[in-house]
Amino acid sequence: MTSESTFIGLMRAMATDPAARDLLDDCAVISLGSENLILTHDMMAEDVHWLPSADPADVAWKLVASNLSDLAAKGARPLGVLLGFMLGEDSWDRAFAVGLHKALSHFGVALLGGDTVANRGDKRALGLTAIGAATCAPVPSRGGAMPGDLVYVTGTLGDALAGFELIEAGFDEVGPLATAYNRPEPRLAEGQLLAPLVHAMMDVSDGLLLDAERLANASKMGIAIDLSKIPLSPAYINYRGDALESRLQAASWGDDYQLLFAISPEIQIPVAAQAIGCVTQGAGLILFDGDKALPRPATLGYQHQ
Amino acid sequence: MTSESTFIGLMRAMATDPAARDLLDDCAVISLGSENLILTHDMMAEDVHWLPSADPADVAWKLVASNLSDLAAKGARPLGVLLGFMLGEDSWDRAFAVGLHKALSHFGVALLGGDTVANRGDKRALGLTAIGAATCAPVPSRGGAMPGDLVYVTGTLGDALAGFELIEAGFDEVGPLATAYNRPEPRLAEGQLLAPLVHAMMDVSDGLLLDAERLANASKMGIAIDLSKIPLSPAYINYRGDALESRLQAASWGDDYQLLFAISPEIQIPVAAQAIGCVTQGAGLILFDGDKALPRPATLGYQHQ
Repeated sequence: MTSESTFIGLMRAMATDPAARDLLDDCAVISLGSENLILTHDMMAEDVHWLPSADPADVAWKLVASNLSDLAAKGARPLGVLLGFMLGEDSWDRAFAVGLHKALSHFGVALLGGDTVANRGDKRALGLTAIGAATCAPVPSRGGAMPGDLVYVTGTLGDALAGFELIEAGFDEVGPLATAYNRPEPRLAEGQLLAPLVHAMMDVSDGLLLDAERLANASKMGIAIDLSKIPLSPAYINYRGDALESRLQAASWGDDYQLLFAISPEIQIPVAAQAIGCVTQGAGLILFDGDKALPRPATLGYQHQ
Repeated sequence: MTSESTFIGLMRAMATDPAARDLLDDCAVISLGSENLILTHDMMAEDVHWLPSADPADVAWKLVASNLSDLAAKGARPLGVLLGFMLGEDSWDRAFAVGLHKALSHFGVALLGGDTVANRGDKRALGLTAIGAATCAPVPSRGGAMPGDLVYVTGTLGDALAGFELIEAGFDEVGPLATAYNRPEPRLAEGQLLAPLVHAMMDVSDGLLLDAERLANASKMGIAIDLSKIPLSPAYINYRGDALESRLQAASWGDDYQLLFAISPEIQIPVAAQAIGCVTQGAGLILFDGDKALPRPATLGYQHQ
């Protein structure tokens, strides 16, 4: 099978419009009149992004949340979504529709259109396009971090990882960790407050460390992260403790949907966020545990196939 | 399996934003500042929309063309597309990428972003979102046809039907009929010229008669169509003749990607198009062969499952 990176390489040759941002960003940014439009399209597939036993309403929620999280990273105000839906078993489809309605109502986002295709007995693949309006200009990207910037992350990390493990093991379908996995809350309000202030921003969907390295690379800078600063929830600490290994796991698993951003140390942060490192001259990611430099882990996050 | 109409019924409950146009139109129309944005998302699936033996470059072309045809029906200027791609066999994916590049270059449209998902050995499903800017206001819809309007269609009908049959039978991979099936040309230029003038417009993708009935229903009017006026190409006439049965088939098969529109008889038509009927008080579709009224055929077009 073609790898994602190979295919994106093929696509980059035809993504020459500046709006495509070289396919290196979370969203496309189209200038139209005095407005900047933000567009993203995320897909999810059965057995890849959700277990066959998953609640269809949770699948719908995550499909919406993962796309809105991309808009949040641009500080965009969502305008609506279009759904690409593969039809299947009737009760699943109805439960998905109910869950989609609930998710869209929760986030105050309208369904604007889409398409369906018949299913010939295959595993489902779903797609969602989200469109938003920028609330500031320029629209932040992954590039632009400056030496001396502080690096922050909103919320806590690792909850979705713990939730996934608990669900897989047959426990805890309703606790805060399972909820973090099944019903992530994209940081739309925080994104709008941060967008005019940050030098670089992205959402954390594939693991903090992997995404931080992407932000560093897009900015042509280095990023130093202190793992002792990784924000953990009480529920996560109760589940796995807060030792270095536990923090490393929380920082290298996906589905957090928090915002990671680089910002001048002189700026007062208008949202709840934890400083976890800083931007440096140089390249790539350097990890510390307090004062102690750490070797690079084998895995920084979820690498798509 | 859930039927498309049942699922769209479920979706309509959450498509309350006026931009969604009650999911009855080809596109969503979002007002933003002084601009109207046009958005559409179409999916295609293996064994449903293309034969497994199809050239991946043709699949790419049709995915682009079917979405751009929706923009054409709004008179929109395309701004770009986002691709949702299910990865698979390497040579197929590369041929698809080459074909996509060729199609996007042909139509002068940029790839702006998208997403890929891994494939677990299933049949492929692909999605494309196209975004355009309206070139006039108000943006035409399927509704709005007025009694006494003439009904026109651009181009010729039935070529894609004949092309499909020839390809299925193992003939004629390169002639004009096969090309009409494999490489449709959405009527973007015609759409922009017509949009400020028409009362109602849509693209013909599921069969002229079915789509004309949809336009009649959306307009809460009747439409009378004279099958003797259905425009046929010399290649189609050579293939199947131009008797009534042949015209009826040409008018009830999909993949034509022509524009169907209702317009005041006082307006000079700025594009090549054939008058095929008129809008009436009443409801639904009435067919004639010249002066002779015809019974309603069992099938008006391609009904999605």
